[in-house]
Amino acid sequence: MIPVITAFEQSPDRGKGLARDMRVRWALEEVGQPYEVRLLSFQAMKEPAHRALHPFGQIPTYEEGDLVLFETGAIVLHIAERHAGLLPRGANARARAIAWMFAALNTVEPPVLELVTVRILEGDKPWAGERMPLVQDRIRARLRDLSVRLGDADWLDGDFSAGDLMMVHTLLRLKPSGMLDEYPNLAAYVARGEARPAYQRAFAAQLAVFTGKSPRR
Amino acid sequence: MIPVITAFEQSPDRGKGLARDMRVRWALEEVGQPYEVRLLSFQAMKEPAHRALHPFGQIPTYEEGDLVLFETGAIVLHIAERHAGLLPRGANARARAIAWMFAALNTVEPPVLELVTVRILEGDKPWAGERMPLVQDRIRARLRDLSVRLGDADWLDGDFSAGDLMMVHTLLRLKPSGMLDEYPNLAAYVARGEARPAYQRAFAAQLAVFTGKSPRR
Repeated sequence: MIPVITAFEQSPDRGKGLARDMRVRWALEEVGQPYEVRLLSFQAMKEPAHRALHPFGQIPTYEEGDLVLFETGAIVLHIAERHAGLLPRGANARARAIAWMFAALNTVEPPVLELVTVRILEGDKPWAGERMPLVQDRIRARLRDLSVRLGDADWLDGDFSAGDLMMVHTLLRLKPSGMLDEYPNLAAYVARGEARPAYQRAFAAQLAVFTGKSPRR
Repeated sequence: MIPVITAFEQSPDRGKGLARDMRVRWALEEVGQPYEVRLLSFQAMKEPAHRALHPFGQIPTYEEGDLVLFETGAIVLHIAERHAGLLPRGANARARAIAWMFAALNTVEPPVLELVTVRILEGDKPWAGERMPLVQDRIRARLRDLSVRLGDADWLDGDFSAGDLMMVHTLLRLKPSGMLDEYPNLAAYVARGEARPAYQRAFAAQLAVFTGKSPRR
């Protein structure tokens, strides 16, 4: 059964691959699972038909037969549990890889997304300029700890896992800010993620939505 | 084997149960698993011995034989996967319960924790007063969607699950603000969570750390 995911009809980042469907696409490419994409307008995302799939009116969702899932973390974990390639075999190593998924989503991503608040949601407020360094320092506190833990390893805990997939994609959002380059081992880590063939295929697929030239047809 | 978790030696909320060890205590109580607690000073949390367990120098951690875990979501999921009582048996229902765990941690908690930023981290800044309603509106957007989805059900998807545990504890932080009372079904949902015997036992145990009168001795 081919799963169906949802994604933005109009890419808010103009095909830079920062939207969260990229995480699901990447996971599906890593495990070699074909998928279909249903594109949604911003208006359609807020309508009852989509709300029935996603209570918060966001993308992506994941439909596979009777199963409907929302939340990127849950979707990627579901894929990782059912196909080889994204979680280690040993029970302890598997639990640790899942811990890195949660670390990406609950410890690293929240301060990173505050950049969007200060730049866009509150970009026109008089405090935006003065708040920016405070927000950046909170991000740096996370990056410093992550950089120390990663050290000179290729991935966070053994082989590439769903934890790395989530962390790399979370960190990608920092690339334009230059903050990632303050931690060369993290910049190299993100580059390793981007260089994976599965990432490249997922990136091309989401870019094709923006350019209108699908690599899949 | 009795797992060992870490918690604050000095409760920052004076025993109100908002620290994240409460989530792990609650999960362990729900499944009837005894546990031990190692208390840490704020200084000890940042030292190498604890950093080896938790890369970001936080609590809680979870040690069980050779396994060391951090991230509340990962710890609660690990407990829920190994004991009955926190995840449904059917594969699809189980995946949906896990989706609610991620929704609590990645969709609802980040805006809720911005209250801490505006009140405490930036409480002395000139913009604190003007930012507060913006932060509150972002929280309300999540609460509104969650309230609609919950409707008049007791729990988010069938029986009580690890997803409800995470969501209830995330929402608890809003109680003092009064925002929860704007959504009576959410206030009742949180009250249902707090009324569970397992919650009560976990709450008493963390309160005892603050009062120094352990209910477990």
